[in-house]
Amino acid sequence: MSGSNVARNAGRQTGPTDHALTASVAVHVGLLRAWTVALLRGVGTPADIAADVAEVLVASDRRGIASHGTARLPQYVALVESNVLDPRARPRLERSKPALARFDAANGWGPHAGKVAVDWAIAAARIQGIASAVVRHSNHYGIAGWYALRMAAAGMIGISLTNASPLVAPTRAKAPLIGTNPIAVAAPAGRWGAFCLDMATSTVARGKLEVAARRGEPIPVGWAIDADGRPTTDPAVGLGGALQPLGGDERTGGYKGYGLGLAVDLLTGVVAGAAFGPSIVPLFSTHDGEADLGHLFMAIDPAAIDQHGAFEGRLERYLDALTAAPTIAGAPGRVIVPGEPEADAERRSDEHGVALDRAHHLSLVVLGERLAVPFPAHAEPAA
Amino acid sequence: MSGSNVARNAGRQTGPTDHALTASVAVHVGLLRAWTVALLRGVGTPADIAADVAEVLVASDRRGIASHGTARLPQYVALVESNVLDPRARPRLERSKPALARFDAANGWGPHAGKVAVDWAIAAARIQGIASAVVRHSNHYGIAGWYALRMAAAGMIGISLTNASPLVAPTRAKAPLIGTNPIAVAAPAGRWGAFCLDMATSTVARGKLEVAARRGEPIPVGWAIDADGRPTTDPAVGLGGALQPLGGDERTGGYKGYGLGLAVDLLTGVVAGAAFGPSIVPLFSTHDGEADLGHLFMAIDPAAIDQHGAFEGRLERYLDALTAAPTIAGAPGRVIVPGEPEADAERRSDEHGVALDRAHHLSLVVLGERLAVPFPAHAEPAA
Repeated sequence: MSGSNVARNAGRQTGPTDHALTASVAVHVGLLRAWTVALLRGVGTPADIAADVAEVLVASDRRGIASHGTARLPQYVALVESNVLDPRARPRLERSKPALARFDAANGWGPHAGKVAVDWAIAAARIQGIASAVVRHSNHYGIAGWYALRMAAAGMIGISLTNASPLVAPTRAKAPLIGTNPIAVAAPAGRWGAFCLDMATSTVARGKLEVAARRGEPIPVGWAIDADGRPTTDPAVGLGGALQPLGGDERTGGYKGYGLGLAVDLLTGVVAGAAFGPSIVPLFSTHDGEADLGHLFMAIDPAAIDQHGAFEGRLERYLDALTAAPTIAGAPGRVIVPGEPEADAERRSDEHGVALDRAHHLSLVVLGERLAVPFPAHAEPAA
Repeated sequence: MSGSNVARNAGRQTGPTDHALTASVAVHVGLLRAWTVALLRGVGTPADIAADVAEVLVASDRRGIASHGTARLPQYVALVESNVLDPRARPRLERSKPALARFDAANGWGPHAGKVAVDWAIAAARIQGIASAVVRHSNHYGIAGWYALRMAAAGMIGISLTNASPLVAPTRAKAPLIGTNPIAVAAPAGRWGAFCLDMATSTVARGKLEVAARRGEPIPVGWAIDADGRPTTDPAVGLGGALQPLGGDERTGGYKGYGLGLAVDLLTGVVAGAAFGPSIVPLFSTHDGEADLGHLFMAIDPAAIDQHGAFEGRLERYLDALTAAPTIAGAPGRVIVPGEPEADAERRSDEHGVALDRAHHLSLVVLGERLAVPFPAHAEPAA
């Protein structure tokens, strides 16, 4: 199978690969999921909730987005152990209209609250044509795309948004004040499977700077600024500064990425009555109180206003045309459908196992030992 | 009052100004609107429809976005005179669920169909909490932000999307295959007035290349590619190639802008059953048949799930924090609220008249003479 970096970078189309971490082990998807469930139950999570959290985390690993998967488990467990996150909490429907609901996640696991809310939106959209559920008082919910894909699997156009800890400097500001606030949009696309755009509203995720820093490689202008707000090509300096919004600086449209990130916060934290912007605690902090994140899920049922399957057929033809387009010189391949590299990684993972890089694998082994939930020994070196 | 370039560029935060066009005349908003109505009636538009079209076009001029306002009238009139657009057509509600509707604009004026659809969405959202109306078989609808602001004025979060003629090359493609497909999001923001993000999903609009070409100035990498798909800093070469999606090339996140543009098309043309992507005829073509554009309007009522005014108060506090943030060295001012420069331009226009640059003014005078609807002589040189 492919090394972990292939899988990890597949979702991002471009960027540095981290050869230092190429050595990896492959873990069977079912084993990884079952172990994650057992681990989460070990820290007090009810079985059904643990299953939801494991499903979303392992989905991220399967899709090659290691930064949002089981690699987070040590930090998630630390949040539980420091009483910052309540592993037993169940979301509560607080208020609703026929097509709009607000849930209180009661400071529980984000992926469980997210699943409950997205399922409310799907059910309501079947009747109303479109529906949305917002969630407040939540925690990290993993990859935004998982929820959008759940709606796509139900035949709907799905939109999934969340706010996050401040890492991005708004245009003209020198400090990080808003999160990388991702946007995910998915839809059924016939033989293309699913369209799934899942993107941070910063130029790149913070993880790309970390990889470049480990490799001692420069980063392009437009990724980050230093602590005084100057553009930097040094990833270590950027990590001490702030990420730039999509578009980079003002002249190349960075104010659009800033506006998008702010719009996501408006549709999640602000509308749901959660924390927002600079009021959100630092990522995985165990001593700043609850995260109080906000999410939004929206389902649109194309069949409500069209012949069944007509939308999907049109989208399929559209993607046919785009992927057949003549490419620029030096292009690494044809035009890509958003979500295609992640779907390829998912197929590889399901066939050959999830590739965990050495550091990731070791962290899970150590965590399992400490909590007396041994990590599966069936792991074998990735081919 | 400010010269026309100040107004025109205010909405974009940055970019070349066009000193060659600085000379301008100021026209009273009411006179400009009344003349536009008379002109549109002169080519067969019913009075109520003409009022809607004039309202949206003049709103664009007032907000300093000359490219989407009355400067388009010669092209709009040409579409009517060549029987490509039906000025008498009225939109028809084709299918609906309680929170989702599809309208057929019957190839009439986009701003009228848009207003009918957005008002449906506002009324339905009051009952359902959220509602959306999509439109097919439409024409250009002016600035996306007008519709979003109409929803914000009704106390809602408003989203307005449209597809458009292909001008943007998807990441890795060398030809323009998708439109600049704008995203507008607006919301009431207390003493900040309204939050209004209104952005093309390309790095910049085509108009910015035209301005740079007239001035003989280079453009930044990331704005456009040449006809072979190579990055270019020559605006004239870029005009013969394609715009780049927000983010520029693949390494600086251009695939995100491409994905966003595609997502907008999916939510407008594809879902509404209109034309999409490369199947859309060239901009203002009078010999390629109907435009068949698709729009989407979505209204979310925060009061449906919260105390009245709570959302607006939170957004106001958020914007207070952002605009008070320390700025980078050399910043042209403090952090801006999306829509703030346009709102400033609107206030100036309403006080001092709309500033039309010489070429724009002359084109309207000529059009008025030809159609026997003389342009108001009350225009006076802008201070």
